Amino acid sequence: MAIQLYDLAGAEDDRRFSPYCWRIKMALMHKGLPFETVPWRFTDKDAVAFANSTSVPVLVDGGHAVSDSWKIAAYLEQAYPSRPALFGGSDSQALTYFFSHWAVRTLHPLLMRAIVLDLYGQLHEKDRAYFRESREKRFGKTLEQHGGDPAKAVAELRDALEPVRPVVAENDFVDGKGPGFADYILFGVFQWARSVSPVQLLEPGDPLYAWRGRMLELWGGYARKAKGYPV
Amino acid sequence: MAIQLYDLAGAEDDRRFSPYCWRIKMALMHKGLPFETVPWRFTDKDAVAFANSTSVPVLVDGGHAVSDSWKIAAYLEQAYPSRPALFGGSDSQALTYFFSHWAVRTLHPLLMRAIVLDLYGQLHEKDRAYFRESREKRFGKTLEQHGGDPAKAVAELRDALEPVRPVVAENDFVDGKGPGFADYILFGVFQWARSVSPVQLLEPGDPLYAWRGRMLELWGGYARKAKGYPV
Repeated sequence: MAIQLYDLAGAEDDRRFSPYCWRIKMALMHKGLPFETVPWRFTDKDAVAFANSTSVPVLVDGGHAVSDSWKIAAYLEQAYPSRPALFGGSDSQALTYFFSHWAVRTLHPLLMRAIVLDLYGQLHEKDRAYFRESREKRFGKTLEQHGGDPAKAVAELRDALEPVRPVVAENDFVDGKGPGFADYILFGVFQWARSVSPVQLLEPGDPLYAWRGRMLELWGGYARKAKGYPV
Repeated sequence: MAIQLYDLAGAEDDRRFSPYCWRIKMALMHKGLPFETVPWRFTDKDAVAFANSTSVPVLVDGGHAVSDSWKIAAYLEQAYPSRPALFGGSDSQALTYFFSHWAVRTLHPLLMRAIVLDLYGQLHEKDRAYFRESREKRFGKTLEQHGGDPAKAVAELRDALEPVRPVVAENDFVDGKGPGFADYILFGVFQWARSVSPVQLLEPGDPLYAWRGRMLELWGGYARKAKGYPV
């Protein structure tokens, strides 16, 4: 049986917006592993309880279930060593772990401010009350207050991306000459945005604009074909 | 002839405080390459003009001169491939390039605010006017204003280091199970501090405190023996 991936969906089954799930879909494509996705919503806690998880991604490979995008990537690398590597080696994996923490801490909050109201509008009806309540508690303010100045959040996000630009300008990918899990971590941020929001995160002259274009084209345009807005 | 490294010094010849020079001294030790350092001050522009540089580090290896710490590291990796690797491979080198930009952009300005007045007090007399003028122009304020709240800068630095903690807690080093150039980039920040300032940057319970201890002990305590304050 093919690998199954529980994947966060919006109102439509095929609007998939989780940055963490995008990391894993890209990683599965990178490894050339067949998989099918199962649309899941925030309030479907029971559906992933078998994996001792309350969120996605959850990956099921035969009888084995793994949750948490970092643990899933490490699992795939270990379980499929003869497939293309997601990390160049153990030192690269450690550096990618830093990159993940940096992205989640620095980029995710800025993007959330930029798109939260668009995102809310794309949620499945059954998720809306849960999302509003849990996020307003986390942010300490209403969604409307948190997302009230998306243009400022985009400007801050562009600024926070500064240390990545020289890397992709010199090497094409964050991971060097070819894409790796660090690229999928960063790309998850951009797919998250375009799956729910028309916001233009990058200017065409930005080295990251060209990088994102390369990412969207991988594997016959796998990510570009996903439901979302033009970038 | 041994490799020569032009290395920024304070009032005393053996007070060496440049974070960029520390990167390279650690890299040379890592590769097991014999080298001697040449004390250099900010105003000794003529002494490194032969390398088309106005700053250090400058490395001279036989007839070959290289400036800029990133270029020097890449040179050492390429010129001495049979020696222990500074980068695990090309993808790790790309990720380390990101790490360097992140450190310079995020950590260096915070550390400067924390130590600039101590640093100024440790400069060679001939460098003081140059340092004050060039830095006050860069900061847009006096040194005294810029360094006026070191405790706040230390608190912000501790916060900015957050994405590195899970990495060194899990792997001992930023580069994984053994130290690599990303470790030397981060360590340069801490050696910069302790060479000129008694400021306590880290609490003993911090995973980074233990990591710094491991770095100080490498190669028989090479870095710990350098002139500076206890950490």
